[in-house]
Amino acid sequence: MITSASSVKSPSADAISFHVRPDRLVRSSASASASSTTRRISIRRFASRDDSPRSSRRIPISIRSASISICTRSSLRIRRSSLAKATRLEATPARSRTSRAEWMVEDIPSPYHRSTSLRSRPHMRIHHGITLVLMVLFCMTKPTHAVGTSAHRSEEDLRWVDGDGLDVEGRAFEDRSSPWDRLPAKAESIVRPPVWGNSRHSAGIAIRFISDSSTIGARWHLTSDRLAMPHMPATAVSGVDLYVRMEGPSGPIWRWVANGRPSAVKNERILVSGLPVRSREWMLYLPLYNGVESIEIGISENASIAPALGRDRPIVFYGTSITHGACASRPGMPHVAILGRRLDVPVVNLGFSGSGTLDPEMADLMAEIDASVYVLDCLPNLDGGKVAARAAPFVRRLRSLRPAVPIVLVEDRTYADSIFNPSKERRNQANRAALKAAHATLVREGVDRIFYLEGDILLGDDGEATVDSSHPTDLGFVRQADAFEPVLRDAMRASAGETPDRSGDDHGNR
Amino acid sequence: MITSASSVKSPSADAISFHVRPDRLVRSSASASASSTTRRISIRRFASRDDSPRSSRRIPISIRSASISICTRSSLRIRRSSLAKATRLEATPARSRTSRAEWMVEDIPSPYHRSTSLRSRPHMRIHHGITLVLMVLFCMTKPTHAVGTSAHRSEEDLRWVDGDGLDVEGRAFEDRSSPWDRLPAKAESIVRPPVWGNSRHSAGIAIRFISDSSTIGARWHLTSDRLAMPHMPATAVSGVDLYVRMEGPSGPIWRWVANGRPSAVKNERILVSGLPVRSREWMLYLPLYNGVESIEIGISENASIAPALGRDRPIVFYGTSITHGACASRPGMPHVAILGRRLDVPVVNLGFSGSGTLDPEMADLMAEIDASVYVLDCLPNLDGGKVAARAAPFVRRLRSLRPAVPIVLVEDRTYADSIFNPSKERRNQANRAALKAAHATLVREGVDRIFYLEGDILLGDDGEATVDSSHPTDLGFVRQADAFEPVLRDAMRASAGETPDRSGDDHGNR
Repeated sequence: MITSASSVKSPSADAISFHVRPDRLVRSSASASASSTTRRISIRRFASRDDSPRSSRRIPISIRSASISICTRSSLRIRRSSLAKATRLEATPARSRTSRAEWMVEDIPSPYHRSTSLRSRPHMRIHHGITLVLMVLFCMTKPTHAVGTSAHRSEEDLRWVDGDGLDVEGRAFEDRSSPWDRLPAKAESIVRPPVWGNSRHSAGIAIRFISDSSTIGARWHLTSDRLAMPHMPATAVSGVDLYVRMEGPSGPIWRWVANGRPSAVKNERILVSGLPVRSREWMLYLPLYNGVESIEIGISENASIAPALGRDRPIVFYGTSITHGACASRPGMPHVAILGRRLDVPVVNLGFSGSGTLDPEMADLMAEIDASVYVLDCLPNLDGGKVAARAAPFVRRLRSLRPAVPIVLVEDRTYADSIFNPSKERRNQANRAALKAAHATLVREGVDRIFYLEGDILLGDDGEATVDSSHPTDLGFVRQADAFEPVLRDAMRASAGETPDRSGDDHGNR
Repeated sequence: MITSASSVKSPSADAISFHVRPDRLVRSSASASASSTTRRISIRRFASRDDSPRSSRRIPISIRSASISICTRSSLRIRRSSLAKATRLEATPARSRTSRAEWMVEDIPSPYHRSTSLRSRPHMRIHHGITLVLMVLFCMTKPTHAVGTSAHRSEEDLRWVDGDGLDVEGRAFEDRSSPWDRLPAKAESIVRPPVWGNSRHSAGIAIRFISDSSTIGARWHLTSDRLAMPHMPATAVSGVDLYVRMEGPSGPIWRWVANGRPSAVKNERILVSGLPVRSREWMLYLPLYNGVESIEIGISENASIAPALGRDRPIVFYGTSITHGACASRPGMPHVAILGRRLDVPVVNLGFSGSGTLDPEMADLMAEIDASVYVLDCLPNLDGGKVAARAAPFVRRLRSLRPAVPIVLVEDRTYADSIFNPSKERRNQANRAALKAAHATLVREGVDRIFYLEGDILLGDDGEATVDSSHPTDLGFVRQADAFEPVLRDAMRASAGETPDRSGDDHGNR
């Protein structure tokens, strides 16, 4: 009855790796609980084709929505996300000793490439009280120890809380068309359509909350089913990213906890579980290149949750696809997010892919934000002529509306392949010359608290920090954060009035 | 006739960003060449709805298979890849003054999420001698300067050369089932099926050649249409990655040139063009998590091409999904590839996702390779018990077959979330204790030239170097390469007999 020996594997195969062999058939009889998400089932190993059990050891497994990962030596977990990924996974028609419904796994897409929800695949559904006839672990006697990746097992029913009611950073405007927009509704008739379209991605928005829950989950509904891009994975385009505030060796730090991996428009994940019950401050970053219809935080039934304390004025970054977050691996890894954590301040990401072009109306909108620092990082979407025409007027306009707020001018990063591409090298040179000239003009005019960050140090000099010569990977974003950090610290000091303005006549890397 | 104002954008929008407005209609009359891949067409700008041309300036554009990117101030390029991505791109039915065929762009999928080949979309095909009625750049007067990402424009017809006839590194066995397998055909009946399945991915294989071509292209056919994974982009899973050997400040270096971005099973890309004609040594990495049916290198018609000179014995890495390359952003960014470039030596990647489990038969296969160093990096797929049972026997077997070759034992990297997950921390601890014990046993037995790399330094200590707690991003891979490099340099010296064995009693990070 078994179609063939088969295997399941994945590149997260540390987490999921098993192997189906006809001579190692496992059959199980269900002893399922009534939980809607998790069931415990005992399975028995059969060692040979004659179907006599080699071992009657019952291995407890839990089934959660219908997919499979190996959890511990003695347990097998079934979760939707991993089953949807399972390829070449084959099971047998039931020859169960019970008369209950049978379940068969078949025709499952290959690992990790399609995230088909089981809800849409009726033949994969698990029904209450079913008898499972399961494919078997190659190494069932001592199954490969594996651990969850983006989700941990949870036996409990979570309580779901709307993220919109918690402290939300990176969302600087009220009166939005949709709760998770980055620009106000009125902007639709003010900014160019591509800016408006990009502003509906939740890039840089983070939900901050305090909770003593031992489990943290996320349930988020996206606005688009395009979960990934060819050069940027779904984990970043459409996933969520959880950090917690901890005591570090020299003060508080933000520490990464888990990525919520998307598999469809509607996603629900346990991000961390099993923590000791005590109050912690959490930050959950939203998707970078997708919109969010709704997002909820899941906590244990009896746990507390409250908005984190609102923080200082934010640093506001205006820029291009690079600011927007292309091509990080997770929502927490664009330099804007990294800097927010390192400096422990709120940040607002106004990166608009392909459309960070120093449009004057953006100065007006940015001036509505009570910012500590404004960062202008638009050169990758401009050329020298446009920089010459737009940079100084943009700064004058912003400064006239927000006279006290430091402004950081950022040159364009060096294209990773510019040494092979003279037009790219010329583009970098023309942009930078024009920005330096604009800066000099502004300084001559007496515009103070203007800081300047040179582009050649943003990505290092080994050519390895981008995926496509333009867009940084996490490697490039960390290097960018390293380059930005001292300049932003200076600008923040100037913003707080702690130091005299050191920047007025400084063209250098400040 | 224009349906609406519309826009095209993308996160590579530095490269592609334009905007269609009814009042900026461009119509063009074709003056196409007969080239099968590229045509030059002049277009005229129309400023208003009355359709009278505001400017008769002819803007030369070239059409290449059918998609659009902006090339320079004065030109507009049309290439298949970007048109397939264009969303909300709308054009008008032709009202051309010529009687030739009309072409309309409509109903195109959203940017970067589907890579529909135009060959399968007849309504998007470009025919010879057509008249195009084109949507227009928002900023056509001074169109946004943009540059190609993974492909450069080429007017020329390339000559295609089978990569199999050039120097191929990372492919250590003859008598393969398929040209781009990583294990020999006989392995199918020797290794476990998941190992065999993974061995058919071209991870770590690189084509080395010498050419004076000013243009380098790649044409590769994949074995699977699953181009990406949720946590790893298509650029790495199924793309190719081009490097060139250059003179660096202190000797030769390998410098990244371009990524060949996949859009379908069959791909053809110009990777770099416009180079001065002179002889260069190139290296093209093949896809990490896909198989290759065939791969060809494209060069200019009259250029030369020859295999690069074969190099020394390789370093052979045996490991898990991490060695396999998950989750790099490009095929050149796993630590195995980085180390091959830094040390300027051939490497063989025997990473098998989820299946790097120190199987004894792998020792036999590895011993068939005339290696300079063997690296055993399997702990992420094992637990302490398995390490205790398998590590020492594997080393003894390998050493008995290759008595002179240094062996590097590598501990498992620390899970990025292990501080929140006691089971992961215990797993790390048990694995490492078992490997240290195995190492001590081997040393006691007099097995020499055994090097040892501790796991806690592999990814740094900030928790940021993975996408999912287990799999490194490019950031993590660079950190891993930093940790491996000194140990491998020691091992290579031991391999060459240049230094006495320093490792026999060394548990430390050597």
